[in-house]
Amino acid sequence: MRVEIITTGTELLLGEIINTNFTWLAQELNQRGFDVLYQTTVGDNPARMKEVLDIAVKRADIVITSGGLGPTRGDITKEIIAEYCNVDLYMNLEVWNHIHEMLSRRNICIATNNEKQALVPSGAIVLHNEAGTAPGLVLEHDKTIFVMLPGPPFELKTVCEKELFPYFEQRFPHLGIIKSHTLKLRGIGESNLAEMLDDIIVNQSNPTIALYARHGDILIRLTAKASSAEEADVLIAGMQEKVEKTVGTYVYGYNHDTLPEVVGKELLCRQKTIAFAESCTGGLATSMMTDVPGSSAYVKGSVVSYTDEVKNLVIHVSKTTLTKKGAVSEEVALEMAEGIREAIGSDIAVSITGLAGPGGGTRKKPVGLVYIAVADKNGSLCRKFVFNGTRTQIKQRAAMAALGLALDRLKESPQNNSEETIHDHDAER
Amino acid sequence: MRVEIITTGTELLLGEIINTNFTWLAQELNQRGFDVLYQTTVGDNPARMKEVLDIAVKRADIVITSGGLGPTRGDITKEIIAEYCNVDLYMNLEVWNHIHEMLSRRNICIATNNEKQALVPSGAIVLHNEAGTAPGLVLEHDKTIFVMLPGPPFELKTVCEKELFPYFEQRFPHLGIIKSHTLKLRGIGESNLAEMLDDIIVNQSNPTIALYARHGDILIRLTAKASSAEEADVLIAGMQEKVEKTVGTYVYGYNHDTLPEVVGKELLCRQKTIAFAESCTGGLATSMMTDVPGSSAYVKGSVVSYTDEVKNLVIHVSKTTLTKKGAVSEEVALEMAEGIREAIGSDIAVSITGLAGPGGGTRKKPVGLVYIAVADKNGSLCRKFVFNGTRTQIKQRAAMAALGLALDRLKESPQNNSEETIHDHDAER
Repeated sequence: MRVEIITTGTELLLGEIINTNFTWLAQELNQRGFDVLYQTTVGDNPARMKEVLDIAVKRADIVITSGGLGPTRGDITKEIIAEYCNVDLYMNLEVWNHIHEMLSRRNICIATNNEKQALVPSGAIVLHNEAGTAPGLVLEHDKTIFVMLPGPPFELKTVCEKELFPYFEQRFPHLGIIKSHTLKLRGIGESNLAEMLDDIIVNQSNPTIALYARHGDILIRLTAKASSAEEADVLIAGMQEKVEKTVGTYVYGYNHDTLPEVVGKELLCRQKTIAFAESCTGGLATSMMTDVPGSSAYVKGSVVSYTDEVKNLVIHVSKTTLTKKGAVSEEVALEMAEGIREAIGSDIAVSITGLAGPGGGTRKKPVGLVYIAVADKNGSLCRKFVFNGTRTQIKQRAAMAALGLALDRLKESPQNNSEETIHDHDAER
Repeated sequence: MRVEIITTGTELLLGEIINTNFTWLAQELNQRGFDVLYQTTVGDNPARMKEVLDIAVKRADIVITSGGLGPTRGDITKEIIAEYCNVDLYMNLEVWNHIHEMLSRRNICIATNNEKQALVPSGAIVLHNEAGTAPGLVLEHDKTIFVMLPGPPFELKTVCEKELFPYFEQRFPHLGIIKSHTLKLRGIGESNLAEMLDDIIVNQSNPTIALYARHGDILIRLTAKASSAEEADVLIAGMQEKVEKTVGTYVYGYNHDTLPEVVGKELLCRQKTIAFAESCTGGLATSMMTDVPGSSAYVKGSVVSYTDEVKNLVIHVSKTTLTKKGAVSEEVALEMAEGIREAIGSDIAVSITGLAGPGGGTRKKPVGLVYIAVADKNGSLCRKFVFNGTRTQIKQRAAMAALGLALDRLKESPQNNSEETIHDHDAER
């Protein structure tokens, strides 16, 4: 089934609101096996909306609109589609009673223009809207199914989940579905990953495999087409096994897992505490860790040592090391990690020192150079990274890498080698 | 000038990414007097893209595409438009050199498919892309102006601001314009602000006035319609004067100013340094301050004291105060500010202690309760806030309030009263 989604509203064309309705609908419909081929935005203008409908009917089987079902004169979607299908509008008593009830519950007097919201095109199916006054509507005309949805995102979602999707399941029982599953990785760049998975990527068919880098995360998304959710799950599980045989050591979580959450869980179940000494990340790593509810159980505290003086005074990095090696060096990173661990008394400690830029880079120490060290009772190790990106991107990537290193140490990965150096040139994508 | 924006990419139709490019473009183009009448999304499919172009050419004077200028086979926008306009592609040396330079700067070997990005349609104007490898392109054909923009949002914005908009200004000098000017405020809630400006809001016409709360900032946006930028500026200046007569003391900056930048500038010009002791914000305030390039000149460092132990050990909050008053209290906030100032040796110090939730709230100390204290050589003061929102929103609002308080102290505002209490119940919007 070919779908076109028409989002209406002058506020969209003025750029006043972001079209999240379309993104959500597209996700949900694709997962249910519909082909969303086009999306059009048009203002609250009768002539232009008719013209857009005319085009949509020619290239789609299902035309879904969002918005324009409200009580004002500017709300014209239902009227235009009824006119287009050459059917009358009638006052639907059930809808009218619902509107009445909703408004009186909010202590709002019913106005004449609310009657407009109770008008339903003849022959349309009413999709009850428990979250608002405007119902959704389904109207079949010739070979096209028109679906009209309310514009407010919460109402649109409610009507879809409670009414439209169940209707679609009955109406199109044999549609295949698309299901996705995301693996989240740390400690590897996108291009190295692509190389390691080259065989699988070249020979992919169903499920497909795609690599992404987003906010310092590396993602592998597996997408399966199948006739049922169960079949899709089996296809995905098979592919996941193949992928993890090759790069499983880099996988830290799935789908909505975040690295701070996963590190937090590891700390919790091992009853360990963590502390950070942050230089170029300026507190970001700790802030990310403390975004997780309940993190006070394992985050003891941190020091942002933005100057050499604070590195020396508060976390006891030796003045000699600072002078001889410079603040951005493996030696300082190691002393920072050991120093913060001692100062705060945490089980594990992570330090980050580097150049976030845009100024301050040299040939030997370019912007993006970051040393990250981790220390616990077994000793300490340091890794070197070179990140690309803007100042805030470098901060983000360095903070994510620091959490990744903490996770490695927590899981006692075999890479406990203080000499190890990784050049992460891919980090900019 | 009627504009249609065509956003391309299967990832949009799958609902994988939100179409922020369109929203941004729509805002910018409307402000410049263009009529954005249609927006269409289509996948990376030659037949469908041609069909969409065909429709767009009939109903718009300017057709702007975003996406599909990359090096892969799936990137087809330039090729389809060139074919549509019946012009050849040629290898543009200037673009090629730029690509070469960008890739070698990132230590990436140039691949054969990068050549594709240097191909330019004959007769097209190249819009230099300093943020990426794919340039923007302008191609006039018959009565249509085709504008091709790269898909990554940062690249699209850069190409528009540095190249496309200046080109439009020269090409369409007589368009009416809409101009906006934003005032940024701290230390006042949205509903109090609305009350104070009630007269102005009720009687608005041109410029219009709108209030927003976003990411802990309170914004007033003035929007003028005029035939020239100068005329718009005069209208806006008049309205701004009226607004600032009433609420000027709360205004900290304009348009793209951020509170961390403004605080940074105040510190720089007074040659003062700052330090933070953060509890519930977990490092966020310091991270925000250090997002600003050059902030190492005035941020000395911070301590995230997420446990009582660290509050006592590192920044010397007395155990008695912690036990008697609890970590979330005015007394602890004051000792934290004084303690961090001493420990790090900064001119000014700010402390934040509170409950970010979602757990841990009590009747007396609810989630959202935050004490923020500021200390300098003249003494210290503390303010009490109650923020609404999720854990991360409360962190954000508390961090912004802390920077606001630092700014007040730096500007030696008259509100240096350690008893003062603000209930910021509006903060959730």
